[in-house]
Amino acid sequence: MTAAGPPQIAKLGHVALVTPDLETSLGFWRDVVGLEEVERHGDTAFLRAWGDREHHTLSLRAGEAAAVDHVAWRTKRPEDVDAFAERLDAGGCEVTEVPAGAERGQGRAVRFASPQGHRLELYYDVEKPPSPAAVASPLRTNSTRAWERGISPRRIDHVNLVTTDAGACCTWLGDQLGFEMRELIRLADGTLAGGWMAVTNLVHDVAVMADAAAPPDRFHHLAYCLDNWQDVLRAADILREHRVVADAGPGKHGITQAVYLYVKDPGSGHRLELFAGGYLVFDPDWEPIVWTEEELADGMSWWGPDLSTAAEMATTTSF
Amino acid sequence: MTAAGPPQIAKLGHVALVTPDLETSLGFWRDVVGLEEVERHGDTAFLRAWGDREHHTLSLRAGEAAAVDHVAWRTKRPEDVDAFAERLDAGGCEVTEVPAGAERGQGRAVRFASPQGHRLELYYDVEKPPSPAAVASPLRTNSTRAWERGISPRRIDHVNLVTTDAGACCTWLGDQLGFEMRELIRLADGTLAGGWMAVTNLVHDVAVMADAAAPPDRFHHLAYCLDNWQDVLRAADILREHRVVADAGPGKHGITQAVYLYVKDPGSGHRLELFAGGYLVFDPDWEPIVWTEEELADGMSWWGPDLSTAAEMATTTSF
Amino acid sequence: MTAAGPPQIAKLGHVALVTPDLETSLGFWRDVVGLEEVERHGDTAFLRAWGDREHHTLSLRAGEAAAVDHVAWRTKRPEDVDAFAERLDAGGCEVTEVPAGAERGQGRAVRFASPQGHRLELYYDVEKPPSPAAVASPLRTNSTRAWERGISPRRIDHVNLVTTDAGACCTWLGDQLGFEMRELIRLADGTLAGGWMAVTNLVHDVAVMADAAAPPDRFHHLAYCLDNWQDVLRAADILREHRVVADAGPGKHGITQAVYLYVKDPGSGHRLELFAGGYLVFDPDWEPIVWTEEELADGMSWWGPDLSTAAEMATTTSF
Amino acid sequence: MTAAGPPQIAKLGHVALVTPDLETSLGFWRDVVGLEEVERHGDTAFLRAWGDREHHTLSLRAGEAAAVDHVAWRTKRPEDVDAFAERLDAGGCEVTEVPAGAERGQGRAVRFASPQGHRLELYYDVEKPPSPAAVASPLRTNSTRAWERGISPRRIDHVNLVTTDAGACCTWLGDQLGFEMRELIRLADGTLAGGWMAVTNLVHDVAVMADAAAPPDRFHHLAYCLDNWQDVLRAADILREHRVVADAGPGKHGITQAVYLYVKDPGSGHRLELFAGGYLVFDPDWEPIVWTEEELADGMSWWGPDLSTAAEMATTTSF
Repeated sequence: MTAAGPPQIAKLGHVALVTPDLETSLGFWRDVVGLEEVERHGDTAFLRAWGDREHHTLSLRAGEAAAVDHVAWRTKRPEDVDAFAERLDAGGCEVTEVPAGAERGQGRAVRFASPQGHRLELYYDVEKPPSPAAVASPLRTNSTRAWERGISPRRIDHVNLVTTDAGACCTWLGDQLGFEMRELIRLADGTLAGGWMAVTNLVHDVAVMADAAAPPDRFHHLAYCLDNWQDVLRAADILREHRVVADAGPGKHGITQAVYLYVKDPGSGHRLELFAGGYLVFDPDWEPIVWTEEELADGMSWWGPDLSTAAEMATTTSF
Repeated sequence: MTAAGPPQIAKLGHVALVTPDLETSLGFWRDVVGLEEVERHGDTAFLRAWGDREHHTLSLRAGEAAAVDHVAWRTKRPEDVDAFAERLDAGGCEVTEVPAGAERGQGRAVRFASPQGHRLELYYDVEKPPSPAAVASPLRTNSTRAWERGISPRRIDHVNLVTTDAGACCTWLGDQLGFEMRELIRLADGTLAGGWMAVTNLVHDVAVMADAAAPPDRFHHLAYCLDNWQDVLRAADILREHRVVADAGPGKHGITQAVYLYVKDPGSGHRLELFAGGYLVFDPDWEPIVWTEEELADGMSWWGPDLSTAAEMATTTSF
Repeated sequence: MTAAGPPQIAKLGHVALVTPDLETSLGFWRDVVGLEEVERHGDTAFLRAWGDREHHTLSLRAGEAAAVDHVAWRTKRPEDVDAFAERLDAGGCEVTEVPAGAERGQGRAVRFASPQGHRLELYYDVEKPPSPAAVASPLRTNSTRAWERGISPRRIDHVNLVTTDAGACCTWLGDQLGFEMRELIRLADGTLAGGWMAVTNLVHDVAVMADAAAPPDRFHHLAYCLDNWQDVLRAADILREHRVVADAGPGKHGITQAVYLYVKDPGSGHRLELFAGGYLVFDPDWEPIVWTEEELADGMSWWGPDLSTAAEMATTTSF
Repeated sequence: MTAAGPPQIAKLGHVALVTPDLETSLGFWRDVVGLEEVERHGDTAFLRAWGDREHHTLSLRAGEAAAVDHVAWRTKRPEDVDAFAERLDAGGCEVTEVPAGAERGQGRAVRFASPQGHRLELYYDVEKPPSPAAVASPLRTNSTRAWERGISPRRIDHVNLVTTDAGACCTWLGDQLGFEMRELIRLADGTLAGGWMAVTNLVHDVAVMADAAAPPDRFHHLAYCLDNWQDVLRAADILREHRVVADAGPGKHGITQAVYLYVKDPGSGHRLELFAGGYLVFDPDWEPIVWTEEELADGMSWWGPDLSTAAEMATTTSF
């Protein structure tokens, strides 16, 4: 039974990154994080986690400087792609067409940017290629064997954006794309320091955090999730054994309640969150959890390091 | 932004059980499992887990014999209750009205039974009372402190029904209530041995398993979920320390991939599944995973005990 | 078969603390940490963990100011108490007799101080009282049920002392009491910044860390151990739920490889380490692992917070 | 400070196995279990875990039939090898000399058999070669990186022998080699069904279980230990992903309290226990925990499968 009505986003699809050092980046994402390299095409590598079944949830393209090419979302129905495009166009967004196959493994899509400049993509058609027999999981829900190499997260989970006016960005995400607010930080002067929004039962699919520094189209991190809290500690061990220094963690967020570890791809500086836990939201009448300015540090880190003062956590890449 | 269209279920709400030995049952659910006793009203106790915010996710009513009074589901919108009632009535179901307050903490609801006799309830309005300050969690998303007493699961997750014709029951759940099939076992003769269905991103909200033995309105278990695989082992420890013997587990299901432990309430014989893990489904074009008769044992237990032959697992209670 | 030869220490026995706020301290150690209060005698409470079988592994005595009364070690043989006393006396230590029963649950003992002023006790005879039936574990190796209340560590593990001349203190612990060096930090000027020493297969039973600040008889922490890394994260959760702020962690030491969390008893300021993991040493020809000044921060914290700069970690209590 | 007196065993050193299918066995121990192949010499492969530092803790030699070549123990002092040899010779044991280098990485040793025929070895001198830089751990206590490949246990832990007269075997292990009894099962007719004995602080270094069936020189399993309970569940996952079927588990022993998983090397049928947990014994006056015939099943499995009836657990290999 499919619901009629306005277009809807089903899930986060993938993040397309540009890296100035593809080999170092691949060494990190494939060998240390443990993603499967599904395909290399020209100067772009396509990767996914063992619980991801789409062609890729991460792409790494060699480029002059680190940048986020786009963040892609899959719609619930094929017709939602055009329905969103019409709405975005009506809302003043420039929407460009991406022909089928222009991105490996993906059908036609549309691209556009948030008012703050974060480039987003919407698609429905996508390939779900099986993994080679030598690494395929005997469980049909999974592409490759779990625990096979490196940290081995289960699947992509969410993205976290940084901008100068988080309130405006969150309003746009709600009005144009249907994201609903789950938790937020409201400063004493009324401005939004951060918003955590979702279209699924996940506590959030996207977060937007405010930072007055330019540029407005910044990227804080993408997140892959692990099954157990212990797996976050194992990830810290594996990073250390490979002499990769984490940004912050382990700790537990007050907001979302995820047990987290942050680390930057040494080849590009793009930040990855590895996390486990968090909660799901099933309530149709969910009231956003509001954290005040006084509670900001607790919201960022319920236990573990004080993320509100951690210097490494302030650096970001941009779109 | 709320989707228009057909009525929808948002989530499993609660399970109402009848027990012939309320004190023993309370000793189990409150002191060993660790649920909060929110309210005792007459001969009924209302309980919830620390991550549940509704008035209750389990009720225990003293009665002559163990039985399931009903399984309740919350709708996405207030008007969905009547929309479902109309559809069910049109489909030949007898729908009865439950006035607001007839069930503690809950607004008006409707009750009806599956063609196999499983009594279900639909409601939208429900109280979310805060827990007493002495046990309240400082995290506003949680009612009481986690880890406070006993096994301490996070929240209610799903129910598992047993009937003589699982195929008919699953078809009805799909047609009338909108559940979609996620995984299933198809026997060589074409009959459905079991179906796992969902309306949320959970891998399943309800399962139906076939058993030729009468009666057709049987109940296999309700499930509360834990955050980590290790918590399932801790649960096994806690049961043993309290001299409660588990039915089966720990093990890991092939179907749903949950790490599980089964145990019966010693006061009533109703079965509880404590589990962690499993996967979420975000794909709008999910194709059900089909397990054959040869794969049945693997589907039931990926590792751990052979659930297809475990005598304790064959016993059930009924509605 | 018992080995003849010089006297030997079998294990850390207990730590006797003085607290200016006994009720707050008891609320912490009994209700949050989850130790069993075995006996209250006068103004002293005796506690132990569920895997401890001696009468107590911690005592809390009400006093004017926080202090460590003594740290007690059990010898391998009854005659070792006197053999050690003779050696200590010959080495210039003042040794005082503690009659049987002077400390609840314990036979005769001897007390003395390290040259730096840390008061130590040696005993062999000790009671191992069973716990009351209502809380007793069905496993005969354990006193009370595991997982019963609060953080619920398994057993006492080690103590960590602070002094002005760590090298002198470690030499004395080796010469007089038989502790062997397992890991150490040697500064560029040749002085010992810390030594981790053992008489058992544990990676260490006692550590000594250098701090030029007076007094020389300081106490850094006592440690109770948990079974799993995840239990350390659960401990962080439980502290937070009870609004107790941790000193540092979770993190993993390079030295000893323990996954740690530090927290002070809010009633006294005495520090507790809750940890899991670490390694065991069976090699009879173990060569101490030497960390240089450049490696000091890594040795203190392999991942997690930088313990070498954490202000909260610099505070100590004294004997 | 080294204790004088009778000779002592410091630790279990290694287990030397013969396999009729070396490549399959290597595929299991190296690629699935994840041990490091330190050296291949002729038809013998030498392996160790990442926390083992000696040249090997397991050797696999190609042979016509599966057999245990010997189980080796390291003594506390060099002179203990000869002191044990004299005692064994005086006790009627045939002791043979193994020249230095006859076994790769090892100095001179002596070999002999228990009265039941289990071939044992004693040595002191052994090489501790560093692992190649590409896989070496940055932690000097570890040979290779943890979590690098497969199940990745920390270190060898114990062996479990089967014989017709367990009582006689345990008495001999105590009298000749100094093992002390920690836990035992005493049948109603007074015979010993099993004994768990140790020379270290581990709950046991060797176990002997009775089985009336011939031959008397049987081998039940060798055990490698993991750091966390969850790691046992991860091991079950990894076995399943590689289509290796476990013998039994996960479960928790009552005796020793280890959380266990048993699996046979598919190339040889030799059984491996992967476990985490268990307890340490520091008490010099430890009284063996006695399990009766009625408690046997609980002692074997505190929760999880009934090991006393599991058919797969009854099969063994022999020396």
